[in-house]
Amino acid sequence: MKTLRSFLEGKWVEGREPFATLVNPSTEEPLARASSSGLDLGAALELARSRGGPALRELTFAQRGELLRAWSKALHAKRDELIGLAMENGGNTRGDAKFDVDGAIGTLAHYADLGTQLGSLHALRDGEPVQLGRTARYAGIHLWAPRDGVAVHINAFNFPAWGTCEKAACALLAGMPILSKPATSTALAAHRVAEIGIPLLPKGSFSFLAGSTGDLLDRVGPQDVVAFTGSSQTANKLREQLSRRGARLNVEADSLNAAVLGPDVHPGSATWDLFVADVVRDMTQKTGQKCTAVRRIFATTAQKQEVRDALVERLAAVRVGDPARSEVTMGPVSTADQLRDVRAGIARLAKEAEVVVGGEASPKALAPEGKGYFVAPTLLLARDPQAARAIHEDEVFGPVATLCTSEPDKLADLVKRGGGGLVCSVFSDDRDFLRKLVLAVAPYHGRIYLGSEKVAGQTFGPGTVLPQLVHGGPGHAGGGEELGGIRGMQLYSQRVALQGDRAILDAVAPALAKQEA
Amino acid sequence: MKTLRSFLEGKWVEGREPFATLVNPSTEEPLARASSSGLDLGAALELARSRGGPALRELTFAQRGELLRAWSKALHAKRDELIGLAMENGGNTRGDAKFDVDGAIGTLAHYADLGTQLGSLHALRDGEPVQLGRTARYAGIHLWAPRDGVAVHINAFNFPAWGTCEKAACALLAGMPILSKPATSTALAAHRVAEIGIPLLPKGSFSFLAGSTGDLLDRVGPQDVVAFTGSSQTANKLREQLSRRGARLNVEADSLNAAVLGPDVHPGSATWDLFVADVVRDMTQKTGQKCTAVRRIFATTAQKQEVRDALVERLAAVRVGDPARSEVTMGPVSTADQLRDVRAGIARLAKEAEVVVGGEASPKALAPEGKGYFVAPTLLLARDPQAARAIHEDEVFGPVATLCTSEPDKLADLVKRGGGGLVCSVFSDDRDFLRKLVLAVAPYHGRIYLGSEKVAGQTFGPGTVLPQLVHGGPGHAGGGEELGGIRGMQLYSQRVALQGDRAILDAVAPALAKQEA
Repeated sequence: MKTLRSFLEGKWVEGREPFATLVNPSTEEPLARASSSGLDLGAALELARSRGGPALRELTFAQRGELLRAWSKALHAKRDELIGLAMENGGNTRGDAKFDVDGAIGTLAHYADLGTQLGSLHALRDGEPVQLGRTARYAGIHLWAPRDGVAVHINAFNFPAWGTCEKAACALLAGMPILSKPATSTALAAHRVAEIGIPLLPKGSFSFLAGSTGDLLDRVGPQDVVAFTGSSQTANKLREQLSRRGARLNVEADSLNAAVLGPDVHPGSATWDLFVADVVRDMTQKTGQKCTAVRRIFATTAQKQEVRDALVERLAAVRVGDPARSEVTMGPVSTADQLRDVRAGIARLAKEAEVVVGGEASPKALAPEGKGYFVAPTLLLARDPQAARAIHEDEVFGPVATLCTSEPDKLADLVKRGGGGLVCSVFSDDRDFLRKLVLAVAPYHGRIYLGSEKVAGQTFGPGTVLPQLVHGGPGHAGGGEELGGIRGMQLYSQRVALQGDRAILDAVAPALAKQEA
Repeated sequence: MKTLRSFLEGKWVEGREPFATLVNPSTEEPLARASSSGLDLGAALELARSRGGPALRELTFAQRGELLRAWSKALHAKRDELIGLAMENGGNTRGDAKFDVDGAIGTLAHYADLGTQLGSLHALRDGEPVQLGRTARYAGIHLWAPRDGVAVHINAFNFPAWGTCEKAACALLAGMPILSKPATSTALAAHRVAEIGIPLLPKGSFSFLAGSTGDLLDRVGPQDVVAFTGSSQTANKLREQLSRRGARLNVEADSLNAAVLGPDVHPGSATWDLFVADVVRDMTQKTGQKCTAVRRIFATTAQKQEVRDALVERLAAVRVGDPARSEVTMGPVSTADQLRDVRAGIARLAKEAEVVVGGEASPKALAPEGKGYFVAPTLLLARDPQAARAIHEDEVFGPVATLCTSEPDKLADLVKRGGGGLVCSVFSDDRDFLRKLVLAVAPYHGRIYLGSEKVAGQTFGPGTVLPQLVHGGPGHAGGGEELGGIRGMQLYSQRVALQGDRAILDAVAPALAKQEA
């Protein structure tokens, strides 16, 4: 069996027993093994700090961008191989695998372009200079300076390619070396993504860890950044652990993403169709294993029956099975543990809601008999959305969502019950309704998607994270921020005010020239 | 004895036994007492969330700014009274007290002006819209939306007026209600500042807590913000406590601020004089009890003797005593505990450095015999700055600094040994030296002050925190950010991306009109 190696201290190294086994979640066939046991993570961090950081910071944004572009192109050249790995180890359909791999390629290319725009600078100005003295000579500027440490990336199992690259793009362009650790269970694609990228980047700027984190987080310090994507439970442990280490922590965790149908939207309209298509896609794409997937669907009591019927019709048509078979439209969840968690989650939801479609413990699947981690697309209907708790608080990480209906003026409060989420989608063409709802739920979200007649056909739905827009959310969702163009680079930078003679400030930290912007 | 009351749930209330006693630190005479025992802090937070927040968010930025302006003007009308309280309870000289009180008045006025500039908006756009689809119609914007909770402000003893108002200005203008808790020992001025402001602000938007925090921090949630100024030790406890509560935490803690003299600067030059004046002011103003005070002074070995002589001459001329006496130029530290800590700190430094001036356990002071918490201005000279630990890590919160000399190319590494600070000052007219040093130490600081010939006479020195520039620092300094114009308001806001039809976005969250900007 293939052993996944780590890239530490400038070389590929192998951990020792005990190993974790990576499997094909459709067939349960073992694919590879990984371990970080016995690896010297402290030395790896030290090389990143002493060699990788200085090498990156010597480059301009444009030069760092070219590194990302080379990586993006190299991934594109291996696209079919990567899609194959994602299908095999992730249980992805071909479409799901493309979503992950093309997301990785596209996000690197987007940040490469951003590097070109930022041109010959080494650090980025924040806002305009301000006059501080009697004359314009005495002034202040703000600068985003790259942090003098390592960016430790701990990724989730659901996006081995995209997750690795979206974090890497922001950190590397900002000027920080990375140590990237994928979730072990689906690490095949992440490992290959790293193998392709590492030779293209300066020594020490890209370390890769296969296996568990070991003592990594006891070795980070105040100039380091830890960016974590995963469960709230693990995030809370990390927060406590890092509160004594001083490293900056970014968390993207559980999110009970809401899709809200405006009272003005009726069957047959473009906005209705967009709503149904977006909800069904975001329930079933990647078998619902997206942090941005729709978990709660809100509509008015008057719309209940029609919404229910439209969703059931689509969800019942989904063909579950091994994505190696061409007729399959939804694969398994990624691991046996995930399957157990999803089943337990559906049981918890079923105490507060009625299962309308799906929900079976062992659904029929186009796969080897008795094998694979399959779940049917499952829609529940909340009995009393106001009284419910699990519906608003428990993220069931599979193709599962709950329909909640209420009077229109209660919708915003129900959305807020999620306690902070990555994305909320609202489907309406009524600007008054949109304005009130959006402003009410804005402090609870990192992103709000407004589905309306005029954008139908132009969007990829609320579940697609774009490099142009911030990804992350407050509260339950972890309080982090990634992507969003230069915003995602701020995590890896220190904002520093400089005050002094204006001419000296311009010499020390030049502004972006107009022709570069 | 006067009992300081708290303003909670819309009324002034008194705590019960046990009370803490506030004293005059020059005479040790008791002035007032305070306790939060028995007060219902949960109900106070609830009123702030349910009444104060909505009331503020209904106002435009311009209207919120007018509230700050009214408070600023009302404080100005009571300026002499406030200065008197700061002198009596804080041990401030008249100059020190003005620094605190005028800082409060000025910062409120600055944010009032910012409110006027932001005009009729309720939430602030972040950056420009981006095109997301094939046409400009499908677009994304980012918005800073006020958080739907309470801003809990825990202030330090050294700036009862300014500390209260700088935090309040950012939060209130951003649209968040505040609960302000001053350090008990010097709360007289903070209490009066709150008494003056509370009637001017909407119900529930300003709560005030005299005494300890009690169970306050066990009652905050994910939409709340806690902004803390104080010691690293308390900050670490807070971090751990709040890691389980989900509230956003901003910390401004210990800082070993460095003042660096460039190798090009010689006695007699304007830059030299600026260096000496700034260092002496920032060692002795507020008796060195400023988070931004100079703690470490760096110069080249060649400059050692001249720097030492210039500083000793000025420091020896400082007249220590009760600020009620007009000839006194430096008062006591604020409490008996502070005195004990400063003495212990000097003893720790003295293991790594030689005391050049000051350092006496009981200096001669113009005060009642045997009374008051006095410390002499104390300069030490490091024996081996590279080997030293306490010099770079222990913040001695009094009129105490250590001179460290080395070869020019070692200066940046020594500065970084502080592990992250609020402000670093560099005095030089050599642009190459400045560029290298500033870029090397930038990720370790929130602010860098460049003292040079052309700005001499226009600056208040590195220790003066300006509302235009960010205040806070990474690592040891806590990792927080306050002030800096709109940057300080970001702590109290959620950055949310909105994507959809461009016309709908503009209707839901309008941009700042050109005539307002």
